[in-house]
This record gives sequence, C-alpha cells and structure tokens, in this order.
Amino acid sequence: MAHRDIHLLLTGDELMSGDTVDSNSAMIAQALSAMGQTVVNKITLGDDRPRLVAALKQASQEAAVLIMNGGLGPTQDDLTAELVAAAAGVALVLNPEAERHVRDWCAARSIEPNEANLKQAWLPEGAEIIHNPRGSAVGFALEVAGTLVLTTPGVPGELKAMLPEVCERTVAVTGGKATHRVRLQTFGIGESTAQARIDEHSLEWPDHVVLGFRAGMPQLEIKLTAPANSPEVIRCREILEGVLGDHILGEDDITLAAALQQVLRDQGKKMVSAESCTGGLIAAMMTAEPGSSAVFEAGFVTYANHIKHSLLGVDEATLETEGAVSEPVVRQMLAGALARSGADIGVAVSGVAGPDGGTPDKPLGTVWLAWGTATDMHTYKTVLPTDRAMFQKLVAAAGLDLIRRQLLGLPKMPHYFSRRAI
Amino acid sequence: MAHRDIHLLLTGDELMSGDTVDSNSAMIAQALSAMGQTVVNKITLGDDRPRLVAALKQASQEAAVLIMNGGLGPTQDDLTAELVAAAAGVALVLNPEAERHVRDWCAARSIEPNEANLKQAWLPEGAEIIHNPRGSAVGFALEVAGTLVLTTPGVPGELKAMLPEVCERTVAVTGGKATHRVRLQTFGIGESTAQARIDEHSLEWPDHVVLGFRAGMPQLEIKLTAPANSPEVIRCREILEGVLGDHILGEDDITLAAALQQVLRDQGKKMVSAESCTGGLIAAMMTAEPGSSAVFEAGFVTYANHIKHSLLGVDEATLETEGAVSEPVVRQMLAGALARSGADIGVAVSGVAGPDGGTPDKPLGTVWLAWGTATDMHTYKTVLPTDRAMFQKLVAAAGLDLIRRQLLGLPKMPHYFSRRAI
Repeated sequence: MAHRDIHLLLTGDELMSGDTVDSNSAMIAQALSAMGQTVVNKITLGDDRPRLVAALKQASQEAAVLIMNGGLGPTQDDLTAELVAAAAGVALVLNPEAERHVRDWCAARSIEPNEANLKQAWLPEGAEIIHNPRGSAVGFALEVAGTLVLTTPGVPGELKAMLPEVCERTVAVTGGKATHRVRLQTFGIGESTAQARIDEHSLEWPDHVVLGFRAGMPQLEIKLTAPANSPEVIRCREILEGVLGDHILGEDDITLAAALQQVLRDQGKKMVSAESCTGGLIAAMMTAEPGSSAVFEAGFVTYANHIKHSLLGVDEATLETEGAVSEPVVRQMLAGALARSGADIGVAVSGVAGPDGGTPDKPLGTVWLAWGTATDMHTYKTVLPTDRAMFQKLVAAAGLDLIRRQLLGLPKMPHYFSRRAI
Repeated sequence: MAHRDIHLLLTGDELMSGDTVDSNSAMIAQALSAMGQTVVNKITLGDDRPRLVAALKQASQEAAVLIMNGGLGPTQDDLTAELVAAAAGVALVLNPEAERHVRDWCAARSIEPNEANLKQAWLPEGAEIIHNPRGSAVGFALEVAGTLVLTTPGVPGELKAMLPEVCERTVAVTGGKATHRVRLQTFGIGESTAQARIDEHSLEWPDHVVLGFRAGMPQLEIKLTAPANSPEVIRCREILEGVLGDHILGEDDITLAAALQQVLRDQGKKMVSAESCTGGLIAAMMTAEPGSSAVFEAGFVTYANHIKHSLLGVDEATLETEGAVSEPVVRQMLAGALARSGADIGVAVSGVAGPDGGTPDKPLGTVWLAWGTATDMHTYKTVLPTDRAMFQKLVAAAGLDLIRRQLLGLPKMPHYFSRRAI
C-alpha cells in the first residue's frame, strides 16, 4: 500500500445494527475530494475494544493518515481516546486546552461541568486538539507508528464544522493537489450500453483519465477523473458527447426536471401534465425543483375513467371501446390538458402500473405516452415489466425527457425506445 | 475472532468518493438483526483490485460469512465475480442458470443480450446463484477457504429483493435464532417526545425488551426487540399504544398513504387532492401504493393562479386580495376539487415552499391546509421553516394524515400542530 493512503475508521454500535445510515464518511470523502484526496479504505466497527485495537494497528501499518469518526463522547462506550493512546504507547492526560474548551462550553450553557463532560478532555499525551466550534468534545491529532491519526466526533454538524481543519492536517501529510473531475448526467441509456459505446473508442482513451458510472435511477451519472490540468479530459468529454449525444442532460447534479425546466425557461414555454398510471409523479418531479412556477402550469391526475372524461374531456365511448390504456385516450388526455391549462406543451400517460390489472392484450407494464403540442403531438407504447415504483419512476422520467427532446428538436425516438421495439 | 462472525465488504468508487451515501449496509444489518445476527466488521473499498484481493483474503481468515455488496454489474470496474473466483482458486465460467436469467430478463424487455449483459452470467466455477427477481445480475454463493462468500448487487431495490435468501444462507452457517420484533410506524411525533412519554413508564418496562427508533422522514418507526416468545412484548406494546395512540399508523412497513388507503377502503370512500406548493406529491404518495385506483379519484396540481381559478373555480378577486397562500383560497380549492371530482373527502394545500417567495407577512415555509368534506371542512395554517424538499414532504404527509384523522374521528389537531402554535 502506498505511503500516502488515507483510511477511515468509523465506530459505533448504531452503524453496525443498521439503525443509523452513515452519511459522515461521504461528507469526509467529499471534503477530501475537493483537495484531490481519495479515501482508499473505510472500516466500520461497533464499540468493540479488541476489533478497534486490531483495526488501529493495521491502519497504522498501511495508512499515511487515519481519520477516525465517532467514539469521542462522554459515555463508557466512547473508546477512541483511550485506544489511540494505547496504540501510541502514551498515557491519557487531562489536556488543558481541551479542558478549557469543555469548561467554556458548559459556562456558555450555564451548566456545571460534570465528570462525563470532563471525560472528553482526557486525551492521549502529546495530542494536538482539533477545535470543535459546535460541541463539547474536541477532536485530536496524534502520530501513531508513523501514521497521523485524526479523531472526529460522530455528530454530523460537529464533524462538518471540523472538516476544514481535518482536511488541512491531512494534506499537510499526503500533499494534496487538485484533480480535474467532470460529471455528466444522462438519461435513457444503460450502463452496459454506455460502456459498450465508449469501448469502441478505447484506443483513443488516455490511461490516466478514469471513467466511472453511477446508476442513480432514473439517471446515469458518467464521471471522468484525471490529474489537474489534463488536456485529455477535454478529448474524453468529446468522445462521451459523440457517443452519448442527446442522452446527456448536463453537468454535476442536474436532474431531468431541472434540465427540462431550463429548456422551457430558455424558450419561454410552459408545460402541463395529465397523468394516470404515474399518479402525479411527473408534476411532483417538476415542482420539486425551485423555480418551477415559471414553467409548470398545471397537472391533472386523472386516475378514474370518469375523471378522464369530466376533467379532460376524454370521450366516454373511446374509453369504453379502446380502454384507458390506449393511444386515442392519451391523445385526448393531452389535448384536454393543453386546452384547459393554456400550456404550450405537455405529456399524458396511461398504463398498467401493477401489481394487478394486466391482461394478455395489455400486460403488466404496458404504457401509452402522448407528448407535444396541440398541433405537433406524438404517441408511443412500450412495456416496462418491473415493479410498480420503478415503473412509475421510469414512465414519469421518460415523459419529461420526451418533452425535452421535442423542445430541443432532438430525435423523437430515444435509445430506450428503439432498443425496446414492441 | 469468533468463527461465527459475519463481515460485510462493500465495493464501489462512488462509496469512497462520497458521491453515494451507503444505505445498503444498514438494510443488510437490519435484515440480519431480525434473525438475531450482528455484523461485526464492515469494510468499504473502491473498485480497486489489490485492496479487494487483500480484504477478501483477510475476511476469509476471520469470518464465517462474508457478504459482499456491489461490483456485480456489466462494466469493467465490476470486479466481484473475478476476484472471488481468484480467491477460491477456481475459473470464471458461463453459469447456465445465470445465463438463462440474463436472457430471460432481456427477452422480457424485447432486447437482444449484448456482451455486457452476458458478462453478468460469468461466475466462479461451483458458485450457486442467488436469484435476483429485479435485475439482470444474479448474486452467488461460494465457499472461499472455509468462509461462505455471498455476493449481492449494489442497486438497493435488487438487494432488498435478494435479502431473504442471503439471510437464509447466512443463518444456515451462523445458526441464527429468531428474535421477537414488533415494528410500529408513527406519524406526527418526534423521537424525543416519544422517548419522554415512554420514559414515564420506565418502571413497568422489562429490561430485556429493547426499544429502538428509526427516523424515516416523514414517519418515525418504533421498534421492540426481545427474545422469542417473550410475553412482555405485549405489555410494552400496550404502553406504546397508550402513550402514542393516534400517531400509530400500523405495523411493519406500512406507509401513511397505505394507512389512509385502508381507512378509505374500509369506509367505501374516495378522495381528491388540490395541490399548489406540494406540486403533486400528495397524489404521487397515494398512487405509489398498489390498489390506489379504488380510493383515489383525482388530483389537481394548480400551480399558477389562473389555473386555480379556471380549474377549481377559485375566485379571482379572492386570489387578488388574499393571495394564493390564504385560508379562503385553500377552502375554495378544496370545494372546487370535491365538486369537480365527485370525491367524498379531500385536501388542499397552498404555501411558500421556497427557496424564494417569502414575505414578512407570509414567511418562507408558511402553508395553509384545508381538509374534509363539502359540509365538514377544516383549515389550519402553520409555518415549517425548512428546505423545499422537506417542506413539501411534511406538508404532503400532514395532508394525508389530516384526512385519515377526520375519517377515523380522531382529534383534529394532532400533536405536530398543537406544538407549533402560530
């Protein structure tokens, strides 16, 4: 293992039982990542003395920096200071600076420090404190067998406030340098297809630009990571734009709804939705984004057939003869929604979300979509045989994407439809 | 280390970079915990061959069962099958059962399996597959140097579907014993208030019944864990019902929407929603539950003021003088939605979700709710100064809960309102 490795060691019974989802390690990793540093090993253990001793010993052999999180509190299962002292072969002593911090913290709250409060000021001899502006337990830094051990509290708000100092102390050892990272959000292309298309350019792909994927239903994030100032990143990005083209929504954390909102805003247009099987999810995705009131006019959740008729003017005879999941019905839903709202463009969906309701003719997962304007309307049928939640998510996302594509003049039949010919 | 230890090994660059917060390990730990099993060691590594090899080697020396999560996908950074095969000293072979699964999965989606899809069927020789009902990548079980290695995919929905088999295979080695566990879902009461109310009964509370909380926005789960066949669990449950009363929605994983759906179904009633600031989330929450078509009639997402007027008949003069976030407007929204849909009961909300739009008079987070029937309608104003997503979630959940309370004849002003007097 390289001598610049950063390891994390998280402690706490609540992390092992599953009662707490750990978000602290992501917070630490992201703060380090901005300094070009990567955590290479993360160990999570309960408040378990022998295992913590073994992990500390192993990390001090492998890591340049070990960041510990948790176990700094006032209770008897908070073992961090004691175990780090033992690993370093030093005693626990009442640290004057830490003691002052505890006393000041208590004074600000008009309470008398008790034994539990003061336990937090007993630190390994020779430790430097890491200031905690939010809580009573300071962190500390101590070298253990050549490894810099940095300890931090498990309370997320306190950890966050201490991260700048933790990062600074880390890069002082590892020699931080900024990296170049590009993250692209895509929709409508799977990881395997994206990989296959990129593989066709493997000869042109420089070794030190690392490609990564993150499947964040319904989007797929594609990530390029390279050393700072690598001109090759630009070339790699061009390759991605060439092979993924109109599936790319934008950079960083942009959502499908935010991308559509941007296009609507740029074109000064407003949209409407008419939903049956997605039950309001299209509207909810759009309005989850701040600023949606400028572009989202109205949403109709017409679940019952008689509501499709009374609210959107869908013909009762058509509902009777064709069924609610049919091309003429989604067309009439969209036409009705556009007329009643005055919106410029919209989408209507009707399908069999399940788990019940499938027929041989219209199996579970069948969905009809209509999208566009009153004078330029398109429809498509597909079958997505998955569970209800995933079905609703995919259909709602496709609905937003189809409006985006129409507004941008992109090919109307995206990859996810052409690969799924019915 | 004891020979019955369960270790977790999570892989994925996205877990190291902090781009993804790992919730899978909590899901695994909770499933095992219901079988009386505890994970004692959790290691998280990137898609990093030498480190994964070292971790596999170490775990196979220490653990009885090693559950791996991630790295089963179709791309080149999905290394799990290859590395487990190497650790076991066997070859990767095209597993006929896994191949059939991939081909069936593709066929159900009318797509031709490509090389990347089929990569997921190459498993270590001798591996038994763990069936994946949700995705194309199966998991597998293989003994490596006396340790049972179980591999699972990183997609949470797929992992969840595979956990029963994973747990079964685990306890076949570790010798699990069932514990008695009761999980109650509540809404509208915070952890500290619930704890304080339960503490009043601490003298009656038996030592070996463990109380746990899990804050799952917007619900709070309250958990009782005891050795199997403990009659005291019944007594503890009675205490909870006494102190939490009408905040209890039901058992296990029941959602607020499912609880409301059940009440509507029992009473043969149908509901409607008229949403401004929640933008369709109330409708989406209701229709996310299977069977919603029997009880959910229609949803109106009336975002723009002119839409509130044209679709729901809200008076234009009222909108002008009182503003969209006002008592008369939510009343008229609800009255319009009930009249136009023919539903029996409903809810209407209008508020300032932010991040912009607050005024001194109606600060960010102000919301008016109206709920009930045409002849028994109630309104309430509150202020929830939080971020947009949380605001929308809380308001939508409160909307559903208020209908539930009215239908059940429960006190109309729940704890979460009475504590937030305006």
